[in-house]
Amino acid sequence: MEGDSTLQLRVFDLNCWAIRYLSKRRQERMRLIGDVLLQECFDLILLQEVWSEQDYSDLKAKLGGCYPFSHYFRRFTILDTLLYQYSLNGYPYMLQHGDWFCGKSVGLVIIKISGIIFNVYVTHLHAEYCREKDAYLPHRLVQAWELAQFIRHTSKAADVVLLGGDLNMHPDDVGIRLLRGWTGLQDAFAEAKHFEGCKDGCTLIPNNCFTIKTELLPFPLGIRIDYILYKVTGAISSFMVKCEELKTTTGSAPGRDIPFSDHEAVMATLHIRRQREAASATLSTAEPALVDVVTEARTEVGVGLRAAQRQRYSTGRLAVLALLLLLLQAVAVLGTLAGLGGQPFPKLSFSLLAFLAVAILLLATGLHLFHTIEVKMLQGTEEQMRMALRVLQEQPSDG
Amino acid sequence: MEGDSTLQLRVFDLNCWAIRYLSKRRQERMRLIGDVLLQECFDLILLQEVWSEQDYSDLKAKLGGCYPFSHYFRRFTILDTLLYQYSLNGYPYMLQHGDWFCGKSVGLVIIKISGIIFNVYVTHLHAEYCREKDAYLPHRLVQAWELAQFIRHTSKAADVVLLGGDLNMHPDDVGIRLLRGWTGLQDAFAEAKHFEGCKDGCTLIPNNCFTIKTELLPFPLGIRIDYILYKVTGAISSFMVKCEELKTTTGSAPGRDIPFSDHEAVMATLHIRRQREAASATLSTAEPALVDVVTEARTEVGVGLRAAQRQRYSTGRLAVLALLLLLLQAVAVLGTLAGLGGQPFPKLSFSLLAFLAVAILLLATGLHLFHTIEVKMLQGTEEQMRMALRVLQEQPSDG
Repeated sequence: MEGDSTLQLRVFDLNCWAIRYLSKRRQERMRLIGDVLLQECFDLILLQEVWSEQDYSDLKAKLGGCYPFSHYFRRFTILDTLLYQYSLNGYPYMLQHGDWFCGKSVGLVIIKISGIIFNVYVTHLHAEYCREKDAYLPHRLVQAWELAQFIRHTSKAADVVLLGGDLNMHPDDVGIRLLRGWTGLQDAFAEAKHFEGCKDGCTLIPNNCFTIKTELLPFPLGIRIDYILYKVTGAISSFMVKCEELKTTTGSAPGRDIPFSDHEAVMATLHIRRQREAASATLSTAEPALVDVVTEARTEVGVGLRAAQRQRYSTGRLAVLALLLLLLQAVAVLGTLAGLGGQPFPKLSFSLLAFLAVAILLLATGLHLFHTIEVKMLQGTEEQMRMALRVLQEQPSDG
Repeated sequence: MEGDSTLQLRVFDLNCWAIRYLSKRRQERMRLIGDVLLQECFDLILLQEVWSEQDYSDLKAKLGGCYPFSHYFRRFTILDTLLYQYSLNGYPYMLQHGDWFCGKSVGLVIIKISGIIFNVYVTHLHAEYCREKDAYLPHRLVQAWELAQFIRHTSKAADVVLLGGDLNMHPDDVGIRLLRGWTGLQDAFAEAKHFEGCKDGCTLIPNNCFTIKTELLPFPLGIRIDYILYKVTGAISSFMVKCEELKTTTGSAPGRDIPFSDHEAVMATLHIRRQREAASATLSTAEPALVDVVTEARTEVGVGLRAAQRQRYSTGRLAVLALLLLLLQAVAVLGTLAGLGGQPFPKLSFSLLAFLAVAILLLATGLHLFHTIEVKMLQGTEEQMRMALRVLQEQPSDG
């Protein structure tokens, strides 16, 4: 990129909802996604929920000609990659929600296009199953915080940062405000010169035949939870990024009667330009607001911490009770063997009771251990946020 | 730090072996560690295996005057912190080894001393329980690789990188060579001008009353698995770091008859100096050797991958068998209810068998899921190493 010429970058982001045996018409949709990506030739494709190895290698084979560098799919040489696993991600026993088993994380890919270093992040945060009583809010906030910290710590040598993914948060939620405030990332939808797609940029809409209509009842237009965010890095950057156009699909794939996924795709056209004069980034203007956001997030993490402490206590108590029951049974058996007791116990119910006690003991111990780790992680995040607040509050007096 | 003046930094590193109920004379040793740290006033204290919250807060209270910034303990303002959890860390069912439950990770603390930005990393990798047949080698290699990647990606804005911890690897092991080669970190023991302590810098020695003598039989002098490593960052750095002195304890705490821990403490005195002329770091000289090391590590990860794939297969088969047994039992019950069968089954053994089948089904499904994740993580690391090799092998042709 010479002088003032502009680099155009077309980015495609989609939560593919491609879970074997669970996602409807998966193979048909994955073929469709491959077809469209092959036709359109985006510069950068960020996909989430491609769970099957087979789907991934099929896509890789299909798109190999147009997008030689996959991990996910890109037209430019990948310099390096890194994966960061969030420390909390729901509960293993919430089988119906299943997020815990998916092991949510954020992937980083570093690429160089026309001499500009791009740090591209892809992620998927914990789902929100009930907005009124969102038990996963503290975990999602820990993830948003860790995502923000991971981006801040790994992007110091990058010129441009891009983040795409299903963040499972509405645009005004505390987690999004925390992520944007703490990293300085800008929302492509809010900044776009031209927009085409679902009203308010929604990506989970009642018009999509795969969405669960009852979940969207409070939101007749749908909700916006899939994002493309970007920023230039460094206090003084010699680049600027503008979002020329943002598009979403509107309930079906272009020219077809079925959608790509239960989520709409988000497609952004970004213009990256080298500036004649380096301009200082204006991240620090919003700092008083940032203090409020971090404080709000910290309060929610604290609520989650107290809930986790209660669960740690009650699972510990349950384990102790099961152990006592087992000891009692052992004493009864020994008593009978020594000829002290009266009638012997009915064998079947006695052994079933022992089996039950062992099962409860194992389960309760496992859960106690799990909640102990949860408490440590929530405490750690609260402590980190406290430290961040101290740094934020000290800054004005330095200046 | 003005002009050519030298900053002296005294670093203390110790695996404290402070696990409640399990570690011998824990409270006495933690008090002793606190006492010595209070007397000596190091600049930076990196502790591992302080598992109890109580021990941590006791230390924090005791050392608060001398080391106001803890997380772990430091005499300088902490700018920021980050924790990275390794994606693999042993097996949950290896209860006797217990590493899985400890959730191994690497902590990063960013501090500024005399205008120099230090990225300080503390970690503890998976233990080696049997050197001849080390089943955890692939997991430890994944950890060493992730540690190296994490350091590379997060240290780009740092002037000096310090890493301390129990790496559970001997100095010539492939994991250490990988970590050092891929990051450019230097070994304080190898670089030290003056050394005082156990022969060969060993940190797990037969002379320590808490070590298990049988494990050290093949190594009469002991082994060196605790390290302090350092480097200056950037292709052109304006700083240089020298290790003036390295000390280890020798089986007992200074002036006492019991040791701090089952590990010896490592204490380094580093001199950091701003250079008049910026010197380019000489990381790229060892690149042909680095290709060999990454190839060797990748081969070992591949061995682990195939073992994980076998375990994924056998646990999946076990789950299917247990399910078949349950179905068979259900058919038998239905047959008896319909009056088709001959004699009814003895109730006790029949229900115990069903219970057993359910238990095996649950366990095998859980393990199958665990090994599926293990396979994905090992594949991911192998793929990253493959990419790193491509980049390394392409470099000479660029120059």
